[in-house]
Amino acid sequence: MQKIEPKAAALAERYGADAVPPAGPWNDVIASLLMHRSVRGYRSDPLPAGTLETLMAAAQSASTSSNLQTWSVIAVNDPATRSELAKLANNQKHIEECPLFLAFCADLSRNERLGQVEGKTLEALPYIETFLVAAIDAALAAQNTVVAAESLGLSTVYIGAMRNDIGRVAEILGLPPRVVCVFGLCIGYAKPGAESSVKPRLAQSAIVFHEKYDASRDEEHRKAYDAALSRYSKAHEMSQYTWTDRVLNRLGPIKSMSGRHTLKNALKALGFRLD
Amino acid sequence: MQKIEPKAAALAERYGADAVPPAGPWNDVIASLLMHRSVRGYRSDPLPAGTLETLMAAAQSASTSSNLQTWSVIAVNDPATRSELAKLANNQKHIEECPLFLAFCADLSRNERLGQVEGKTLEALPYIETFLVAAIDAALAAQNTVVAAESLGLSTVYIGAMRNDIGRVAEILGLPPRVVCVFGLCIGYAKPGAESSVKPRLAQSAIVFHEKYDASRDEEHRKAYDAALSRYSKAHEMSQYTWTDRVLNRLGPIKSMSGRHTLKNALKALGFRLD
Repeated sequence: MQKIEPKAAALAERYGADAVPPAGPWNDVIASLLMHRSVRGYRSDPLPAGTLETLMAAAQSASTSSNLQTWSVIAVNDPATRSELAKLANNQKHIEECPLFLAFCADLSRNERLGQVEGKTLEALPYIETFLVAAIDAALAAQNTVVAAESLGLSTVYIGAMRNDIGRVAEILGLPPRVVCVFGLCIGYAKPGAESSVKPRLAQSAIVFHEKYDASRDEEHRKAYDAALSRYSKAHEMSQYTWTDRVLNRLGPIKSMSGRHTLKNALKALGFRLD
Repeated sequence: MQKIEPKAAALAERYGADAVPPAGPWNDVIASLLMHRSVRGYRSDPLPAGTLETLMAAAQSASTSSNLQTWSVIAVNDPATRSELAKLANNQKHIEECPLFLAFCADLSRNERLGQVEGKTLEALPYIETFLVAAIDAALAAQNTVVAAESLGLSTVYIGAMRNDIGRVAEILGLPPRVVCVFGLCIGYAKPGAESSVKPRLAQSAIVFHEKYDASRDEEHRKAYDAALSRYSKAHEMSQYTWTDRVLNRLGPIKSMSGRHTLKNALKALGFRLD
């Protein structure tokens, strides 16, 4: 495990020194969760034997809706496959570099095959609800994978850009109908200089409400967070940007979606009716 | 933290003694993840001061796509509100019992408000991709909440049944357009007798593939898992059922969806265009 920050320091890194929430109980697991940062550069060092199996035991221990287990993982090692996945993900080189790359899939096909063998139609399969169950199942499993990996001193980064072209990813990975890669996950040892730092988040009171939703302090939170993220970017020699810039750049123009505005039709082509 | 099982015992509980995967590195965090079980009965004991704030610091430390932070949480304590939520969730009494109930929401409205104040249209908002980002963000945050809670000796259970009537849940919680409760989470101390046991999962080789998807051993895995789950149910005096029964009961008839077959239109009514 990485060096554990004491509580006050960990909270100040995550929220900025001015916005530390009145947190209570604390332990090393929680301190480790707070130290999460995404890493986009990996050493070529292989992982210890059995690491994938350990991580997947953690992943399968996450909750799964009604125990349906509607997710699968493909571990991809072939360099040509990695290279193609990296290219369609806007040239994210860490997909090629990292010793372990996992494609997390929402998978309704396993349940469907069971129904076919039993001669039963699964009437719930075509609904967007069931697709959502599968995507959430995959996310819960993936987050347990991240927590387990980080507890072993490994770094990770999610690759949402697998959704730039889910049809091509499905071809590459040989996915049957009603399976879709919802995101990838790079795992490995951070390269020197690529460790990155804990990125501040919005104040807790911007995200967490009591009894009813409350947007009344939105602008106050945004101003403070814009300043915090700008300071963070400057300190880490990144191009300085505010949260406002980030949101407008990422969600403003359709072209920033890198093709993902076609996701609905691409899901339908993979056999998700989304009724 | 709960009593930590050694590696071999933890893996045998999770997979059954016949299907233990060749796991490698191990530590207390991983052991704790493997011990997860959902708990559906809570003592009324309150949580230590600051527990919500600690858990939410862990939640906000999870990855969030492009740092958009497209999720929110409503902590619900009002007994009348709890009671109504429990009723619409097929009378799940633990929603009323637990000392902390969290409604996890996919939230595009915070980003949208920012765009409105800045006079910019967020062209990416109406797409199913952006809804999916928000739902996955909420799931990653929720799973960190679960891991943090369990590390403090608390138990949890996800409540997918919030999706039985997302429109009514949105009214109850005062959600603005483009916010939806994707699931709830009960947190508290397990009642005596409600601690439950680690539930076995499908063999790792049924879920995790290398390079390409591979369903060739499906039937072998299903037979073994049907037997394992049947043994588990019998040992815990639950109505004996196999995985096959479970999947057919849960996904077979539309009526088992408890209204969630209307989710698409309900999402649209909440302002998600799902383009």
